[in-house]
Amino acid sequence: MNSRYHTVPNRRDILNAAERVAPAVHRTPVMTCSRIDELTGRSCFFKMENFQRGGAFKIRGAYNAVSSLTEADASRGAATHSSGNHAQAVALAARERGIPAYIVMPSNAPSVKIAAVREYGGQITFCEPTLQAREEALQRILEETQAAFIHPYDDSRTIAGQATCALEFCSQVDDLDALITPVGGGGLLSGTLLTSEFLDRPLMVFGAEPARADDACRSVEAGRLEREPVPDTIADGLRTYLSELTFSIISGRVHGMIRIEEQEILSAMRLVWERMKAVIEPSGAVALAAALYHPLPDSVRRIGIIITGGNVDLDALPWMGDS
Amino acid sequence: MNSRYHTVPNRRDILNAAERVAPAVHRTPVMTCSRIDELTGRSCFFKMENFQRGGAFKIRGAYNAVSSLTEADASRGAATHSSGNHAQAVALAARERGIPAYIVMPSNAPSVKIAAVREYGGQITFCEPTLQAREEALQRILEETQAAFIHPYDDSRTIAGQATCALEFCSQVDDLDALITPVGGGGLLSGTLLTSEFLDRPLMVFGAEPARADDACRSVEAGRLEREPVPDTIADGLRTYLSELTFSIISGRVHGMIRIEEQEILSAMRLVWERMKAVIEPSGAVALAAALYHPLPDSVRRIGIIITGGNVDLDALPWMGDS
Repeated sequence: MNSRYHTVPNRRDILNAAERVAPAVHRTPVMTCSRIDELTGRSCFFKMENFQRGGAFKIRGAYNAVSSLTEADASRGAATHSSGNHAQAVALAARERGIPAYIVMPSNAPSVKIAAVREYGGQITFCEPTLQAREEALQRILEETQAAFIHPYDDSRTIAGQATCALEFCSQVDDLDALITPVGGGGLLSGTLLTSEFLDRPLMVFGAEPARADDACRSVEAGRLEREPVPDTIADGLRTYLSELTFSIISGRVHGMIRIEEQEILSAMRLVWERMKAVIEPSGAVALAAALYHPLPDSVRRIGIIITGGNVDLDALPWMGDS
Repeated sequence: MNSRYHTVPNRRDILNAAERVAPAVHRTPVMTCSRIDELTGRSCFFKMENFQRGGAFKIRGAYNAVSSLTEADASRGAATHSSGNHAQAVALAARERGIPAYIVMPSNAPSVKIAAVREYGGQITFCEPTLQAREEALQRILEETQAAFIHPYDDSRTIAGQATCALEFCSQVDDLDALITPVGGGGLLSGTLLTSEFLDRPLMVFGAEPARADDACRSVEAGRLEREPVPDTIADGLRTYLSELTFSIISGRVHGMIRIEEQEILSAMRLVWERMKAVIEPSGAVALAAALYHPLPDSVRRIGIIITGGNVDLDALPWMGDS
């Protein structure tokens, strides 16, 4: 892997990313819900990245990375491994640049995400759903094609792109006291933390992670990168580990890490569907679950919550088995 | 019934309504979807009233009517009959004014709509799902309480309120060639037609109606009010007949009426859930179905489509039986 892209993005990198992605991504709406304000006792603002192109915030990082490739590098295509949303995002960004996209996906990825990658013209290679299998499959593709690897989070270009979400959010809502993001590989949380450092007003940033995929919580607590447990959560977008890069950004910067139970994810997801009329995926509900079911400092009155994505199989909703 | 409210709202009535409802309703976002543009070959803009307070555009008319009651009239409460969204809207508007809401609902109304009326503090009387039963039940309540009847569509205050949706839509999107609204009792279509008459730019307005509840199509074709067939459509919000007032507004003004088949409603609904990540109810998909599956004049390049509501039972989605 190329260490060129393992640096911490600075303010200039993030502002450049914002300029680069602006014409290609939606400025997604911020929504509110009086019922959720009642339940949390706070003013909650939702950045609806489920309405983003490709159905998730991931286009921000992927587009920033793909559009910053040199012509020579781009001509060989872009490649990545991802369980879904980043895969779609790279396929979409590559299609817009007119270059091939080679995507390694685990065989258990949601069918709706596989279909979307295909629709955007991505060339899919399936692998076993383990980290080792996906890395090996990707390595073979990189050797064959010499494509540019766009890592879903362990890449400063990706992180700078994800950072534009918080930047945009803070331009849409005044006086936020805190932001909460879900944590998978840590790209969005890293970008959000870096953005928070150059805002005019102090902003607390919290990470919310499924308790059944809590490597980031453990890593922050231990002060070193932990790769336990094997992720086993309904939040399929968060079944990944922090990298050295995202750990180095998060550790020491994050104001708090919050573990979310599976039932909390499902309840928060259903609440958004019912009350906000928005289709969101389980991963997209994790930050709201933190605000609903976990204590936050009393000083936090206005909370920004990033709803990260909405790519969910409508024929296999979590509550369908219950009836 | 009081003929005071059976006049055609004029420009001043609609502008007054816009001013009255502005602090109380959401300025709902306008969304686009590149996939739907591809499918229709046109630029489609969606006014997302499913994100409106109460989950539907109906708060516009109900709030306008309730807030325009005199103090003396208001003190006796507001009453209505409705299968759902207007019921919620009257309950919500009455709660905000601090007055009682008496709601007659058919016994087969969706449970999610009944629950919402209760939550807003509405006092529900159930009746058989026929027009006669609901009118009789309401009449008893009006005699007992002397409450102000807020008709879901056969009322100039309601129509002026619904008109604010198109007014707001046209302020959000430039150069629309046409608007399409669903048709139940005709309040939204009437308000949209009246608004279109005082815009700077000509705007064609189409009504889309379930073929299995096509009294408005038949009425426009016959040139007189028809009360056939007995509505039998999945679009539960559109199982109503035009009134003399809404017929008089629609007839001679509407550019075209389009009959939508049940399967078209379902396909359009599913497409919005999958691609726009928005929870919409069957009635809310009817206008999109017109754009997707029915011919429109070639001159229509930029279409505004009103997505009217999102109150649907998540435990009984139409496609759940299929798997």
